[in-house]
Amino acid sequence: MTTDFARTRALFDLPPDVIYLDGNSLGPLPRATPDRVARTLTQEWGQMLITAWNRAGWMEMPARLGDRIGRLIGAEPGSVTLGDTLSVKIWQALAAALALKPGRGVILSDTGNFPSDLYIAQGLAAMLGRGVTLRTVAPEAVEAAIDDTVAVLMLTEVDYRTGRRHDMAALTARAQAAGALTVWDLAHSAGALPVDLAGCNADFAAGCTYKYLNAGPGGPAFIYVAPRHADTAPAGLSGWLGHEAPFAFDPDYRPARGVERMRVGTPPILQLAALEASLDIWDSVDMAALRARSLELTDRFIARVEAACPDLRLATPRDHARRGSQVSLHHPQGYAIMQALIARGVIGDFRAPDILRFGLAPLYNTEACVDAAVDRLAQVLRDRLWDRPEFHRRARVT
Amino acid sequence: MTTDFARTRALFDLPPDVIYLDGNSLGPLPRATPDRVARTLTQEWGQMLITAWNRAGWMEMPARLGDRIGRLIGAEPGSVTLGDTLSVKIWQALAAALALKPGRGVILSDTGNFPSDLYIAQGLAAMLGRGVTLRTVAPEAVEAAIDDTVAVLMLTEVDYRTGRRHDMAALTARAQAAGALTVWDLAHSAGALPVDLAGCNADFAAGCTYKYLNAGPGGPAFIYVAPRHADTAPAGLSGWLGHEAPFAFDPDYRPARGVERMRVGTPPILQLAALEASLDIWDSVDMAALRARSLELTDRFIARVEAACPDLRLATPRDHARRGSQVSLHHPQGYAIMQALIARGVIGDFRAPDILRFGLAPLYNTEACVDAAVDRLAQVLRDRLWDRPEFHRRARVT
Repeated sequence: MTTDFARTRALFDLPPDVIYLDGNSLGPLPRATPDRVARTLTQEWGQMLITAWNRAGWMEMPARLGDRIGRLIGAEPGSVTLGDTLSVKIWQALAAALALKPGRGVILSDTGNFPSDLYIAQGLAAMLGRGVTLRTVAPEAVEAAIDDTVAVLMLTEVDYRTGRRHDMAALTARAQAAGALTVWDLAHSAGALPVDLAGCNADFAAGCTYKYLNAGPGGPAFIYVAPRHADTAPAGLSGWLGHEAPFAFDPDYRPARGVERMRVGTPPILQLAALEASLDIWDSVDMAALRARSLELTDRFIARVEAACPDLRLATPRDHARRGSQVSLHHPQGYAIMQALIARGVIGDFRAPDILRFGLAPLYNTEACVDAAVDRLAQVLRDRLWDRPEFHRRARVT
Repeated sequence: MTTDFARTRALFDLPPDVIYLDGNSLGPLPRATPDRVARTLTQEWGQMLITAWNRAGWMEMPARLGDRIGRLIGAEPGSVTLGDTLSVKIWQALAAALALKPGRGVILSDTGNFPSDLYIAQGLAAMLGRGVTLRTVAPEAVEAAIDDTVAVLMLTEVDYRTGRRHDMAALTARAQAAGALTVWDLAHSAGALPVDLAGCNADFAAGCTYKYLNAGPGGPAFIYVAPRHADTAPAGLSGWLGHEAPFAFDPDYRPARGVERMRVGTPPILQLAALEASLDIWDSVDMAALRARSLELTDRFIARVEAACPDLRLATPRDHARRGSQVSLHHPQGYAIMQALIARGVIGDFRAPDILRFGLAPLYNTEACVDAAVDRLAQVLRDRLWDRPEFHRRARVT
């Protein structure tokens, strides 16, 4: 296990003129990825053709890479698989959890959850009927809102806007004490901080691989099902690769044992190859060291912003235990400020209505990134560089 | 529009020692694909990072490439989008069609449908309750089984095992006359033969891109929603990229207009880049010429097999109107025969229980492929080359 973050930084192909603090939206390209994907294209697909499903081990990639992600999130071996998108995997986890709690109808979540998770819950509730409803409360009100009507507590551990972190162990225990199951979204947790799903006794979890895990745009999602549920939780989307024997081509669905049943269709092999290259880096990372480094960087970012940018209001908790691996700041002109900052070579993110968001990823971010980013941010604010029309034009993707 | 299939064959990177008749399972690698994917990796992801969603047009890829597939399947512009897997897109189409027919409960399909479509329907029916059931009949009995209990007729146009083709226009008309909607699976149609969704007045369709469309392993699926349904059909999986304004991050789901609502999560950009390279070939292909060539090749294959391989029984219809772009043959030792044939450089497919399946794709298959494949097949049978233990060992993926 390395804690040599200078070494890991050298494994990424970062443009020399850019300070990249948006790896919590799309992680950067590992240097090894293009060759790894090219190998899959030319040697596997090109030369082995259909036989690569066996000869190149394509069919087992979701399980094999799932286990490598499992180490990062404290999952038992064999409890994680890969495929589809995070929204689809949240849907499957939620549908499974609801099926395991037939007498209850409330999905409890918070207003800070990522909208897609809320949309997925709304759509599932509308489809199921039978009294299934989504109830959202403020993040700080979640614990008190858990009662014996709750079937599923569905939360994102780290808030995508503020970086506020829920206490997964405490909330899981509280939900289970009330007879509910939990679905944890790890989008801003996996690769950002140590997660201990087994230790927290979590029921279901899902996350994406294109943020801190650096698997590239549209990398597949992962899903975790606690071993105690894995042979009883229905897949919801009962596709052939979640069948007990996909290549028997039986007319009747029979779920595979374990988390394999959560597979649906043909896995995206090019995206999985890119993920594999990224996991080669992750395999050597000590998660406690990563966390310590992340807190150093976010502490430094907060301290410097507060010294240099009095107009910005901190959105991220100061308390380490309640913080993910990002720093978020409120400003009414947040969108334009971020555009002006990007024009000066610092890439962060804007999130409506007024949040400037900076991801700090120890694998490739350093003190120098923090210092230069805050210097330029201070300059943008001091000189009102954001007050130009081109920085107010909205792009389709913000 | 070209009919120069010698030119298109030269655009594929086929191993020189292989006769590839399995493009109906996984199409081969276009020569342009590795550079196209490498560009997305290094110039787009690597250099533009998060800004590539706008600057490289990533976010619009599903619509842009969907329209290019649309030409091949007779879809109206703006009626096709891409993402997820075929099983997921069949689920969405089926859920939407059922929602549009709330008073009826029967999903009618045939026993020759691809198992995943049947599994998906079984899972959806179990989840919905309210009398939704899957009814399957023999392929030739479908038309007579359409009655006023049927909510949705769900069929795969070309049978994955036999190559038998349904009459899409006639069955769609018959279903609609009985008050039902249609969901067509085009897995073995798109890129295999001309499809005329608009002309057939089809309601929903979905297909995959990794077979005849040559987008590579795990390429994204496409979904078609007839424009008359597109603003009323629910997405089922209500993910953020199907929202009217994904980057407003509203807490409440509001579906996008049109087929865009069928998008769910972040699109798989590496797979889409590979698809784009493949569609550069397809853009120049005249579908009527492709069909004529496909029938020449399948006719030739059938004639030569019947002359040289008396032990094989034809599973594919002789009638052109009822045939896809493959030839399938029954033999009780089908699995071992196919393994022996693969060992002799001819790659086809086995499908349980007893079918040898050969896809004939005019973009890269020729008379020489047909003749050499049948010669070797005849030799395998004549000399009982299949009767060796190693050809009877089952691989995980068959």
